[in-house]
Amino acid sequence: MDTRTAASCSLIGQHKSALDTPALLVDLDVMEANIARIVATCRAHGVAWRPHSKAHKTPEIAHMQIAAGATGVTCAKLGEAEVMAAAGIRDILIANQIVGPIKIGRLVDLADRADPIVCADSIENLTELDAAFTRANKRLRVAIEVDIGMNRAGVEPGAPVVAFAREIANRPGLRFAGVVGWEAHATTIGDAAKKEQTVRAAVSLLTASARACREAGYRVEVVSCGGTGTFPYCAHVDFSPALTVLTTVTSRPTPTRIVVDAGKKTMSGDAAMPAPSGLPPIAALKLSAEHAKIELEQPSDVPKIGDKIEFIVGYSDTTVHLHEDRFDLARGRARQDQIAIAPPGIVLSSRVRRP
Amino acid sequence: MDTRTAASCSLIGQHKSALDTPALLVDLDVMEANIARIVATCRAHGVAWRPHSKAHKTPEIAHMQIAAGATGVTCAKLGEAEVMAAAGIRDILIANQIVGPIKIGRLVDLADRADPIVCADSIENLTELDAAFTRANKRLRVAIEVDIGMNRAGVEPGAPVVAFAREIANRPGLRFAGVVGWEAHATTIGDAAKKEQTVRAAVSLLTASARACREAGYRVEVVSCGGTGTFPYCAHVDFSPALTVLTTVTSRPTPTRIVVDAGKKTMSGDAAMPAPSGLPPIAALKLSAEHAKIELEQPSDVPKIGDKIEFIVGYSDTTVHLHEDRFDLARGRARQDQIAIAPPGIVLSSRVRRP
Repeated sequence: MDTRTAASCSLIGQHKSALDTPALLVDLDVMEANIARIVATCRAHGVAWRPHSKAHKTPEIAHMQIAAGATGVTCAKLGEAEVMAAAGIRDILIANQIVGPIKIGRLVDLADRADPIVCADSIENLTELDAAFTRANKRLRVAIEVDIGMNRAGVEPGAPVVAFAREIANRPGLRFAGVVGWEAHATTIGDAAKKEQTVRAAVSLLTASARACREAGYRVEVVSCGGTGTFPYCAHVDFSPALTVLTTVTSRPTPTRIVVDAGKKTMSGDAAMPAPSGLPPIAALKLSAEHAKIELEQPSDVPKIGDKIEFIVGYSDTTVHLHEDRFDLARGRARQDQIAIAPPGIVLSSRVRRP
Repeated sequence: MDTRTAASCSLIGQHKSALDTPALLVDLDVMEANIARIVATCRAHGVAWRPHSKAHKTPEIAHMQIAAGATGVTCAKLGEAEVMAAAGIRDILIANQIVGPIKIGRLVDLADRADPIVCADSIENLTELDAAFTRANKRLRVAIEVDIGMNRAGVEPGAPVVAFAREIANRPGLRFAGVVGWEAHATTIGDAAKKEQTVRAAVSLLTASARACREAGYRVEVVSCGGTGTFPYCAHVDFSPALTVLTTVTSRPTPTRIVVDAGKKTMSGDAAMPAPSGLPPIAALKLSAEHAKIELEQPSDVPKIGDKIEFIVGYSDTTVHLHEDRFDLARGRARQDQIAIAPPGIVLSSRVRRP
């Protein structure tokens, strides 16, 4: 029983202003243009595009990206990969370590439906992956996570990467697939020149490690880096935001203060704050669990209680997973009823709402 | 189809160390002791306890709280109230404004199954609530949200509250229920004396407003304030953390660095960071989406890759809603298979996993 069903059915063709709030919206016109631009730019530079599914958690969108030219998908964890594999996607990079008997058992099963690549950075992990895949008479593609300056997980670049490639290549249940790094430490740099320099330095540690592996005789299929916060610098491509959250004004306690019905449980302020559109200049924006509080620079009697405000999402990664479903819009109107967003590990028939 | 089913079934009676990670755990022994302590303290002070369901999002726990002596539940929004009402709970305070025809239509429906109280702070909202409930020949309990220093939504304390009570009492579809405030601005104060003083000042604005309403002839059924961050000061009750997240060490890149498989998509760092237990002294803790990075003060060869680390959750409100389900433990062992956590508006048969 879904108590929202009565309110949410039959919204196909309706304008977004008719939707209940808070609602996660995707402007398909903008998203499709972004996909086309990224694919064209990557092609022009002779590199592959493997978009991260954590940004949308929706198999249909992954299929749209692959149809446009993406080589496969990236996932943050095993549960997301299971969702993509169940939707028929085979080439999946899990940009993380898969550790322990329960998850490795699931990974062995996943290898029947997909050809995943996992990242590793420790001998212990290689040993347990190899044992499980050898026992199952299967072979797992393993990429080396390289620490290119983020200082989280990862093998040190250069010679340690080559030594680790040898460890992978020597194990019968594993196949060396390449190198993976993430220049996350560059994403928060404001100054464009310094940011470009930091991205370049980080990525060159990765490409040098890949080159060293090739010189040592190992085939390097994947050299993976880049993300939304660094695309303009490492892939020379920019794009327009397609993801928004529609909200309703629920309180106007003062002429400068606006309170809406969406907070950090609906649109994350992590990494970047959401940006309300169509308002006079704003002095401050604060999120609590179920409220956003906007302070205008000057008093205004609009918007009024009940008016809708659309926020451009600051960071999709920490916003999409907060939602059960999403509205896809074309020319501002709902193209179909809500799309279920797949939580990791729960495989949905994605055109059908959850119970 | 749930791809996790094979791994997650039949865990009843197993020790928590056997669970896959990340896993949200509740120690029922600790939770039940907390409930008993809060009820006893509230009784001793002659006040009612109306726990907030956003902390657990689980009808069974709400029923346990009511059975122990709670007067009803508090919800943050309509969707949460719908979940609690479907589970048979009638006395529900929605500590928020319900605005607009879609939500007010749902609220009118909800009044068939429960006796909700909503908060209001504007004449516009009173007018639309009254019109809908009058048309439906029903009567809605309305409390006044009072701004007691948080400066978000709410009517100013004192005379404006009495004037607003009159506005509610004059409308045939509405019934004045009381006053609600939240001293959230006190939660982040570190100094105990200053915190107590701030809580006392805020709450006295609320109690003075309630007194003024009573003196003007209005019955004040509810005077609602207090929350986890202020309980020791406004309710003189403290408690032990019962909510944890179990994680696995996935990477040990250096002798001082530990990386585990849970990040801010699993355990929020909002309001307060989660605290790993059983480790040597920690120099730093950082959360990214699917990783937590711990830096130890001194090098250590334990924990090893594959070891489990349990984090005490920093803030339940922004952690529980990240999970699909939860393990309830008694004496460290799973008491039953996973408990589904109810997303707002989606009514679950809560002992049954989602599809």
